[in-house]
Amino acid sequence: QSNVTVYGVVDGTFDIINTSGAAGAGRGAPDYTRVQSNGSRLGFKGTESLGNGMSAFFQFESNAKFDAGGGLDVARDSFVGLKGDFGTVKLGNFSGPNRDIASKLDVVIHSDGIGDNSALLGKLGGRASVFDTRYTNSIAYITPDFSGFQATVQYQANENKNIAPSANPANQSLAELGLNYDNGPVYVGLTHGKLTEKNSTGAGTFNTGTDEDVTETRLGGMYKFGNASVRALFAHTKGDGSLGSLKQNVWGLAGTYMVTANGKLLAQYFRANDLSGNRAGVTDLSDTGAKFWVLGYEHSLSKRTTLLAHYAYLKNDDRVSAVSGMAKGYDFGDGSTGIAGSAGSNNDGLKLSGLQVGINHTF
Amino acid sequence: QSNVTVYGVVDGTFDIINTSGAAGAGRGAPDYTRVQSNGSRLGFKGTESLGNGMSAFFQFESNAKFDAGGGLDVARDSFVGLKGDFGTVKLGNFSGPNRDIASKLDVVIHSDGIGDNSALLGKLGGRASVFDTRYTNSIAYITPDFSGFQATVQYQANENKNIAPSANPANQSLAELGLNYDNGPVYVGLTHGKLTEKNSTGAGTFNTGTDEDVTETRLGGMYKFGNASVRALFAHTKGDGSLGSLKQNVWGLAGTYMVTANGKLLAQYFRANDLSGNRAGVTDLSDTGAKFWVLGYEHSLSKRTTLLAHYAYLKNDDRVSAVSGMAKGYDFGDGSTGIAGSAGSNNDGLKLSGLQVGINHTF
Amino acid sequence: QSNVTVYGVVDGTFDIINTSGAAGAGRGAPDYTRVQSNGSRLGFKGTESLGNGMSAFFQFESNAKFDAGGGLDVARDSFVGLKGDFGTVKLGNFSGPNRDIASKLDVVIHSDGIGDNSALLGKLGGRASVFDTRYTNSIAYITPDFSGFQATVQYQANENKNIAPSANPANQSLAELGLNYDNGPVYVGLTHGKLTEKNSTGAGTFNTGTDEDVTETRLGGMYKFGNASVRALFAHTKGDGSLGSLKQNVWGLAGTYMVTANGKLLAQYFRANDLSGNRAGVTDLSDTGAKFWVLGYEHSLSKRTTLLAHYAYLKNDDRVSAVSGMAKGYDFGDGSTGIAGSAGSNNDGLKLSGLQVGINHTF
Repeated sequence: QSNVTVYGVVDGTFDIINTSGAAGAGRGAPDYTRVQSNGSRLGFKGTESLGNGMSAFFQFESNAKFDAGGGLDVARDSFVGLKGDFGTVKLGNFSGPNRDIASKLDVVIHSDGIGDNSALLGKLGGRASVFDTRYTNSIAYITPDFSGFQATVQYQANENKNIAPSANPANQSLAELGLNYDNGPVYVGLTHGKLTEKNSTGAGTFNTGTDEDVTETRLGGMYKFGNASVRALFAHTKGDGSLGSLKQNVWGLAGTYMVTANGKLLAQYFRANDLSGNRAGVTDLSDTGAKFWVLGYEHSLSKRTTLLAHYAYLKNDDRVSAVSGMAKGYDFGDGSTGIAGSAGSNNDGLKLSGLQVGINHTF
Repeated sequence: QSNVTVYGVVDGTFDIINTSGAAGAGRGAPDYTRVQSNGSRLGFKGTESLGNGMSAFFQFESNAKFDAGGGLDVARDSFVGLKGDFGTVKLGNFSGPNRDIASKLDVVIHSDGIGDNSALLGKLGGRASVFDTRYTNSIAYITPDFSGFQATVQYQANENKNIAPSANPANQSLAELGLNYDNGPVYVGLTHGKLTEKNSTGAGTFNTGTDEDVTETRLGGMYKFGNASVRALFAHTKGDGSLGSLKQNVWGLAGTYMVTANGKLLAQYFRANDLSGNRAGVTDLSDTGAKFWVLGYEHSLSKRTTLLAHYAYLKNDDRVSAVSGMAKGYDFGDGSTGIAGSAGSNNDGLKLSGLQVGINHTF
Repeated sequence: QSNVTVYGVVDGTFDIINTSGAAGAGRGAPDYTRVQSNGSRLGFKGTESLGNGMSAFFQFESNAKFDAGGGLDVARDSFVGLKGDFGTVKLGNFSGPNRDIASKLDVVIHSDGIGDNSALLGKLGGRASVFDTRYTNSIAYITPDFSGFQATVQYQANENKNIAPSANPANQSLAELGLNYDNGPVYVGLTHGKLTEKNSTGAGTFNTGTDEDVTETRLGGMYKFGNASVRALFAHTKGDGSLGSLKQNVWGLAGTYMVTANGKLLAQYFRANDLSGNRAGVTDLSDTGAKFWVLGYEHSLSKRTTLLAHYAYLKNDDRVSAVSGMAKGYDFGDGSTGIAGSAGSNNDGLKLSGLQVGINHTF
């Protein structure tokens, strides 16, 4: 029993969702309310000291979507590894450096609800970011900490490789690199990743041709001073192969301020710029981005329990569905409404807003 | 580790199921044996004192259908909340007052096997009770305890709302109210709930028209004296909208008696009366109910471990499938046989019996 | 909290898979790499002393396929039971004596990866062994230990019984018997099981006719001396009913040797002999078996943490798909590649090799 720690987060909110502005299928989408479990999770972890500064460690982490009776799993960061003077090696299913920097710079407490900065990041106008997820079949090496500097390299093995083209295979491999400097009030991170998809005659991840590459580069930082923090994040996504040379920049600014000893005010603004580059059959890429902002207040009742209120607003540009064959339009990230973002629907100009009030409790 | 308690129940029985009496599809249904895991569960819970009489609490509770290797989940009562002088507020997925009163008055130890009183309750001749389940997207307020009096109000938000009619949407919202008096030997409870289903062009919960309401009212009580307890429960279900004015009364009597310090005799009898009211196309609602009784013995080996033997018998009336478009016939509740209750099968007069022998162990 | 122990194994390896030699569908199957979670698991168990030498016990054990974010469940050995002077009775979902003897004699640490001896055992040329699995609806009795002798009898109740023939029902019941002698350096086991499948007009487990029996008999032993162990296992599988009189012998030899205090060398060789007996429409059963060998090294960093490297090689004989209607060809067991073994594919002569390097950590 002493070998394993049971831990987790339970985050329950009452959400009020409003939609407006879309001329197509999104028009008439209902306003509604829900109870949401955001990033609630249940985990099991342990560390064993092996002597000589070396240790073995593991983590099984499950989603806990308790508002709707979801299943338990090992689908959140789950791994086994060794740590020593040489650094850390781990195997499993976990996020890469690109996603980690976005989570670190997010200002909302759960990083998994309607205020999450993943709403706009890495999507290339597409349905879902291929970088803001966890990678199965992962192996990573993390260097020791050199006065705050640390580097990570991660590789996703291609278990589902196929040789002949076939419909919609998960024929994907990936490599990511992350460089971080985290020392006192200053944090700076630079990350880069490349995903390769091959032999997909069907939809594949990008619903385009048989072979695609996507690369993602992110640069971000945070500075803490007094009762405040300021944060900035820039992300550049670029396609290749059947994606043509589609490119997109996304950037954001965020900050927090402790208005009382227990009360934190927070805000963030993100902008997905218009797509650029070339793609067969597409002549006009103007007005294909989106805007997103969040305002929130979080009040700590204890170190483990926080009351929260977040308001998030997302506006799709008026031609967000211009690139045919790609998913059309932006939705919130992990706390998505399900209204925008499905391929084939017309969400040009769709506006989403969400207010959530609730409680976050760690254990 | 001290922040979370791992708890649960493991209930394993060997069940012998017999069927007879049906003239239609149920005829020839086999007698069979099985190992059953009844209400076995695994949970994780915790409470944090926040000072000033206030506390934060959570619970993740999973089914553990270990006789057949089922999945773990947060599909049993799972929630997060705050408790204080003002009462209790909680968010999540959990049972409402109508189900809670039935569970409290049930006499069998697991409330989730072939002797469960949910066999007849709340079904309106229908496939499954919409009240004897857990409600996703729930928010509830429970008053403080006033000398044994306590009230609960629960609301289910309509996350899956749709505006235009569509096939079989879970377009459901619900409110329930419960009043309880629990003081020494006396318990009395009164509960009421209303479920609204809208814009269902397909089967929906009730396989009828587009808009339906169902209301459920339950009144029950228990009195303990010496080594015995007696219990009574009355339930009234009423449809509206596409259900016409279909109504049904269900009532039951139950009791327990400690024959030795560790040995408990238990019995219950429930009767679902014939449907009444009006429904388009149905002229005769006679003989559309069912009878159900249970006899059991439970022997405690310790506070946590009990050996049990239950015999349950259920008889469908001879015209139980008279209302076309509704499910036809009654089965056991959580420990159902799978034989009765499926729409389109003819279970007029079907008799079911089940004997279960096993062990219940809490941890 | 003191009533339940959280325990488990996390086993993560990097696997390199190669295939060659098949003339049919297997030809051109890719070589690939993967991260594999082998027999990783998470469990919850407890024992309560009831006095007089009697105790109640339970176990919920879940898979933890953390390389790919799999679900948690109670699908590994999960049960409740009583133990006393009379022996042990348990109910649930668990392996039987035939599988247990194979696991006990396997030399690789996880018994759930590409070196597992289940690659060849019990398959009768078929898709998957019906004996090397866990049985739902199980009840077992295990005698007390008489100076190392112990007997087990297990029965699987037929919950999914049907009377009229229907397509592909799980209309299965089973009984198994095991005799073990385990005393100091010597272990010997003899097991026997019979599975009966009835009224399957569709594929059923064996994709043959309506009624089948399969019996499995295993005899094996292990002897430990100094730093070494030697092991031998013989298995005989025999069909009846729609399977004709198909028969197969599988046998294997294995051993381990501690080359240092913490370093273990291990090897095993298994051979599935050609099928024999009669089956309608099949005249030649020559060259229908397979060969399998494993070489490995395991280095303990502590009692709970072991580094491992295993190489496994499997060669299907050149006419392994001769019996039409049965699955064709052998794959690794629990760490299967997914390449061989699917019905209808032609894996005559398919060769598979797998190298795995990783870490095994118990908690």
